[in-house]
Amino acid sequence: MSVRYRVRCAADAIAARAQALAIEQSIEMPLDAVRDARVRTDFVGEVRSIEVSPGPAGRFDVVLALAAGTVGDEAGQLMNMLFGNCSLQPDVELIDLELPDAMLQWLPGPRFGIDGWRAAVGAAGTRRPLSCTALKPQGLPPQALAELAYTFARAGIDVIKDDHGIADQPAAPFAQRVPAVQRAIDRANRDKAAGDGELAGHRSLYAPSLSGGPRRLGAQLHIVRDEGVGAALVCPMIVGVPGFVELVRAEAGVPLLAHPALAGHARIGEPLLLGRLFRLFGADATIFPNWGGRFSHPRALCLAIADFARAPLGAHAPILPVPAGGMSVARVGEMLDDYGPDTMLLVGGNLLAAGDAMPARAAEFAARVARSVETHDF
Amino acid sequence: MSVRYRVRCAADAIAARAQALAIEQSIEMPLDAVRDARVRTDFVGEVRSIEVSPGPAGRFDVVLALAAGTVGDEAGQLMNMLFGNCSLQPDVELIDLELPDAMLQWLPGPRFGIDGWRAAVGAAGTRRPLSCTALKPQGLPPQALAELAYTFARAGIDVIKDDHGIADQPAAPFAQRVPAVQRAIDRANRDKAAGDGELAGHRSLYAPSLSGGPRRLGAQLHIVRDEGVGAALVCPMIVGVPGFVELVRAEAGVPLLAHPALAGHARIGEPLLLGRLFRLFGADATIFPNWGGRFSHPRALCLAIADFARAPLGAHAPILPVPAGGMSVARVGEMLDDYGPDTMLLVGGNLLAAGDAMPARAAEFAARVARSVETHDF
Repeated sequence: MSVRYRVRCAADAIAARAQALAIEQSIEMPLDAVRDARVRTDFVGEVRSIEVSPGPAGRFDVVLALAAGTVGDEAGQLMNMLFGNCSLQPDVELIDLELPDAMLQWLPGPRFGIDGWRAAVGAAGTRRPLSCTALKPQGLPPQALAELAYTFARAGIDVIKDDHGIADQPAAPFAQRVPAVQRAIDRANRDKAAGDGELAGHRSLYAPSLSGGPRRLGAQLHIVRDEGVGAALVCPMIVGVPGFVELVRAEAGVPLLAHPALAGHARIGEPLLLGRLFRLFGADATIFPNWGGRFSHPRALCLAIADFARAPLGAHAPILPVPAGGMSVARVGEMLDDYGPDTMLLVGGNLLAAGDAMPARAAEFAARVARSVETHDF
Repeated sequence: MSVRYRVRCAADAIAARAQALAIEQSIEMPLDAVRDARVRTDFVGEVRSIEVSPGPAGRFDVVLALAAGTVGDEAGQLMNMLFGNCSLQPDVELIDLELPDAMLQWLPGPRFGIDGWRAAVGAAGTRRPLSCTALKPQGLPPQALAELAYTFARAGIDVIKDDHGIADQPAAPFAQRVPAVQRAIDRANRDKAAGDGELAGHRSLYAPSLSGGPRRLGAQLHIVRDEGVGAALVCPMIVGVPGFVELVRAEAGVPLLAHPALAGHARIGEPLLLGRLFRLFGADATIFPNWGGRFSHPRALCLAIADFARAPLGAHAPILPVPAGGMSVARVGEMLDDYGPDTMLLVGGNLLAAGDAMPARAAEFAARVARSVETHDF
């Protein structure tokens, strides 16, 4: 695999620094103490190139060739060889990665991708973007969350996710919350079907937040299947990449929305981590902080995350970028300009802040997104 | 829980910034859109204090009171509420944490702690430090790693761990490697017992590297039990905190050595993450980069990690700090000065770099550490 790091370093020291990084991220011992010839030829990392980085001075892009044999076939070990030890070296950022075909093939990638999301909400064959909102705040009991979910679903919002802070706490335990919310959404979907408006064929999806260790996750996945839940939200960096791949991606059977909680390493490029790696691990959509909200991400970085989510990647389907983090209905048009139709727009608190006008604002949001393929100049 | 963040901010904006952080790490929505009175009183985070931080100007220590009810009883969700979303806000560092007694009690903590390690290597009742080394490089076949393990164990090294890059790759799959290495260490322990030297009662422990998702981890834990393996090495931030707690801590039944791979957030204080949180999650020893090696950690930070590993913490046992990352036998005395006897010293590549003199250097390392309670001025 070819791995690009950005290293802060003096020009006269970068050659040695790059070589040390190649050792750190492969055999992790003095090269001259390696006695096995096959280790030297097949496992030691190699410096492929060193170039001055774009942007501020004093930084170099170092491309290493790391052996696929150091990874085997496990996604957590891929994270380990990419950024395990050098996560502890503040002069190093991980910014890009090219994988050989064999690795692209064993990495699961998204099961559904963009087309899968559209099919799931009753928009198969269209090119329209999707709308998403969040059930919040945590602390509400299951019935209150279910009522909120009904309102959102009735308004035509495509994906209704748990707030990422809602896990399996006493206020709304998973085993009570998820059936209650799913039934409310089922009822809203039936009520839409019974009408003859433009929402007649629309199906809202619930994406509950999966969390915890394997036993807890396994029990939650059972509930997802038993209740006919249509999607799921997961924080891969909290659940852990290996559990996300081996348990959630393998067994959920529904489109997966990745949340970036705890992923703000600052030193793994977010296009790579949230856009490409989460996609390779099995996410069908990836949430990230859009510019101009509660986070300080610049616009170019946000657009790069979206590019990585949708760019060609072996045989893996493109996934939906989900710009979020303090967005509002007023910004829908501008976000569609930025991200185009292959996008899921997430507006949460801004809907709830409308108070009694919330149902109307939710319906306006859903309709503006759903109709945008006709009304918006993409 | 009382959580201390360090926030880069202008003085006239810090009050609002602290309030926004309290919302971000609790209900994550506009406060005036919260309609449920109980959510306001029981779940919304509160700003407890704001003080100018020590050190460079323009930083403030913000202490938040976050509700234990936002966490429930799951360690991953604790990470989420502490640093999930604000990991994506580069102006925020997480630096300290006080948990209420009820949370200290449901967090598993170390099963063995410092005394457990000493008992496991045949040094029960002593106050001596422990020695540790690593099997490396990855790429070697199981038999070569087993031979190396025999040599280290025969030399009297206490804990012989897999290099953290050795996982379950084709070069030395876990199911072949671990039985081979454990048998070599068993043989060395028998050979020591058959002698009448000072190593007669000594028992070296093997700490293989556990990795992967729940199925793979489960299979590895079976092998650990079946082969009588005496310890284990885990990277909690790669495996994921929930799986570390629910599967590894619950089922391993041997002392656990935590490795900091992928933990270099830079914005979670390492004393808190590596010293206290890993301990609360169940680690019995915590590896961290010592100053003056391959990492740039300053000495005071290293000493603070060790303090957090051993300071009183509810009913939880203290755990061994394991300074590492390019250490050498020549630094043993100075490291014992720094860390005292309740410590495990890890020297890896420096032993292997001795070439043909490796067995002698390993024996010197083990003996200097083991005898230090008599020879060193603690």
